[in-house]
Amino acid sequence: MSETAEILERVREKKPLVHHITNWVTIYDCANIVRALGALPVMAHAEEEAADMTLIASALVLNIGTLTPGLIEAMKLAGKAANAKNIPVVLDAVGAGATKLRDDKCAELLKEVGIDIVKGNASEIAKLAGMDVYTRGVESTKVEADMKELARKFASHRESVVVITGKQDIVTDGNSVYLCNNGHDMMSKIVGTGCMSASVIGAFAAVERDYAKAAAAALAVFGIAGELGAKDSAGPGTFKQNFYDALYNLGKQDVEKLERLEKL
Amino acid sequence: MSETAEILERVREKKPLVHHITNWVTIYDCANIVRALGALPVMAHAEEEAADMTLIASALVLNIGTLTPGLIEAMKLAGKAANAKNIPVVLDAVGAGATKLRDDKCAELLKEVGIDIVKGNASEIAKLAGMDVYTRGVESTKVEADMKELARKFASHRESVVVITGKQDIVTDGNSVYLCNNGHDMMSKIVGTGCMSASVIGAFAAVERDYAKAAAAALAVFGIAGELGAKDSAGPGTFKQNFYDALYNLGKQDVEKLERLEKL
Amino acid sequence: MSETAEILERVREKKPLVHHITNWVTIYDCANIVRALGALPVMAHAEEEAADMTLIASALVLNIGTLTPGLIEAMKLAGKAANAKNIPVVLDAVGAGATKLRDDKCAELLKEVGIDIVKGNASEIAKLAGMDVYTRGVESTKVEADMKELARKFASHRESVVVITGKQDIVTDGNSVYLCNNGHDMMSKIVGTGCMSASVIGAFAAVERDYAKAAAAALAVFGIAGELGAKDSAGPGTFKQNFYDALYNLGKQDVEKLERLEKL
Repeated sequence: MSETAEILERVREKKPLVHHITNWVTIYDCANIVRALGALPVMAHAEEEAADMTLIASALVLNIGTLTPGLIEAMKLAGKAANAKNIPVVLDAVGAGATKLRDDKCAELLKEVGIDIVKGNASEIAKLAGMDVYTRGVESTKVEADMKELARKFASHRESVVVITGKQDIVTDGNSVYLCNNGHDMMSKIVGTGCMSASVIGAFAAVERDYAKAAAAALAVFGIAGELGAKDSAGPGTFKQNFYDALYNLGKQDVEKLERLEKL
Repeated sequence: MSETAEILERVREKKPLVHHITNWVTIYDCANIVRALGALPVMAHAEEEAADMTLIASALVLNIGTLTPGLIEAMKLAGKAANAKNIPVVLDAVGAGATKLRDDKCAELLKEVGIDIVKGNASEIAKLAGMDVYTRGVESTKVEADMKELARKFASHRESVVVITGKQDIVTDGNSVYLCNNGHDMMSKIVGTGCMSASVIGAFAAVERDYAKAAAAALAVFGIAGELGAKDSAGPGTFKQNFYDALYNLGKQDVEKLERLEKL
Repeated sequence: MSETAEILERVREKKPLVHHITNWVTIYDCANIVRALGALPVMAHAEEEAADMTLIASALVLNIGTLTPGLIEAMKLAGKAANAKNIPVVLDAVGAGATKLRDDKCAELLKEVGIDIVKGNASEIAKLAGMDVYTRGVESTKVEADMKELARKFASHRESVVVITGKQDIVTDGNSVYLCNNGHDMMSKIVGTGCMSASVIGAFAAVERDYAKAAAAALAVFGIAGELGAKDSAGPGTFKQNFYDALYNLGKQDVEKLERLEKL
């Protein structure tokens, strides 16, 4: 069995509980994709319980898509609890580079919480890495840089895994660099793809301590489900449902046959 | 016509307005399922209007899935307005047994508001009934107890209806006990099933003052729609849509033919 | 090419960023419909960034479906930024006429922000125009008035565009009156239709400065997608997905053939 298929099996066997403090646009999709994968989602954003819920979870996914200062405080409490428990913390830096609030709050989270996997699109990650770029709302803009090298340096500097999603996904821990070529254009026609992929990464990291390997495998599985889901879809509405079905039904043979993951 | 089919017809004729103060994960599904059923949903969680909106509604559904202390205050205001107007109040105790905040706030709601129907999965209800159990996020854990007897005693003690959802749903007012065997395994593969069932119970209780009968009928209708929706579904994505369609199209013949409701 | 088809092409070419401060029930649908249309959604409700996000957007859509006083403050900040930048502001007055909070906050928004397009169902707009009507939650009630004339007068008085959605949609800037007869009954069987239409209006107004023309074209396109989506739908679940597909795939020939827009 390929390593990716093997980690997917582990997710389905262990059914890790993935705690989210996330945004109000795609919270519904994040919960559903974790369930379709075979893991269990939970969302608890009150400052009074964010840490307690983390203590019964196996991974924590933070997503700043519709951040408020209060929500960020809950993220810090949950993040510190996750660090203490030594479970993986994923930060999806949605809209970094679009407003000062997002940049400031990302900086605070990266400083105060041990983030194990930082994820974003090209302009979001470039912004976090210190480049002078801007993000158009939550849409990536063109970044004039070698993104592989930028990701690798940023990961080395932070001693964490960095994930850049796009037509080709890049995953690196500063040493190994994975390129994932799975996926389908239809995935960019719906809202929530990026957020859902962070949730899937969280579930994979819950069962695989090599977080770069976990994130790369998660993106391959996610992309393959997108490819299969797009097959008989007439548009983004039916695609979304077929995508869920494809992930739910994804067998190890599909993974082994369709996986397009390179390790540099 | 069976009593269940008759109450369903009443829901569709009267189109009760079901007010929700609920969670941000499944709020979308709760609203849609009420509409697919033929009733009307409304959601208004501001403390400044929670009571006012309740006064034009015919049922109130409270769901603590993503509670905050402020949201609980709005629930209390709405709950007291519902009590004054004598319309049914349903509490879906999502995640009771997972964190101290959830346990404390459930206790407050149960003390300060007249809750007519308390609903949860096995470990949530066991926790509320005073057992030393824990809930894995929002997922039930195994409870070592006779759940029918636990529900009956808790209902008698509280003088309200108690609903425990699971493979077999249990509904009791402390005297009568209903067992509902409708439903399909696919319903546990999507997020929101439990929340949606509470919304449907609210709509049924809006038109039937015997709340145990109303809740049992609601769960039978909900389960039958799940069975029919699962028929041609390839996975949880298509199932969700077919489930909505099945509930929307459900005829009284379907109900009479497929209903598997026992009264002990 | 018809004007409507031409504006739709402009939306798809320019891909305007449509900023929303909206409700938690249909936020997911609002984002997805904007994307299916070919434009880009963003949602950012923190008071600390609501204005900043507006400054990179091409339209602002405000929706009071699940308002709180804090959310209204964010709307005011965003609205004033939009006014300063001279981009269109749409207000969807969800539930005006149902509670005092909604009426008061609509009045504040209409006073403090330059609202370019005020949208609602019949009883919501009648309430805003000063009639003594009530709205049943978010459902329109029967209004004893000539709605075309009421809309025209209200638009003249406010010097803005007024949109009343219903079986026949009415759009007016006080001079021209457009009647849109597109749409399908199935659109009233799902939650979110009204909210989504406001988002589509925002996207059209982002690329067409004649806001009455933009809103009328948006409603025609939205209604045509509803008609096409309803064709092979067995109920509201499959309809929702087919509706997204239909909007995504909508060609100019479809628009020209199916458009039923009158200008009085």
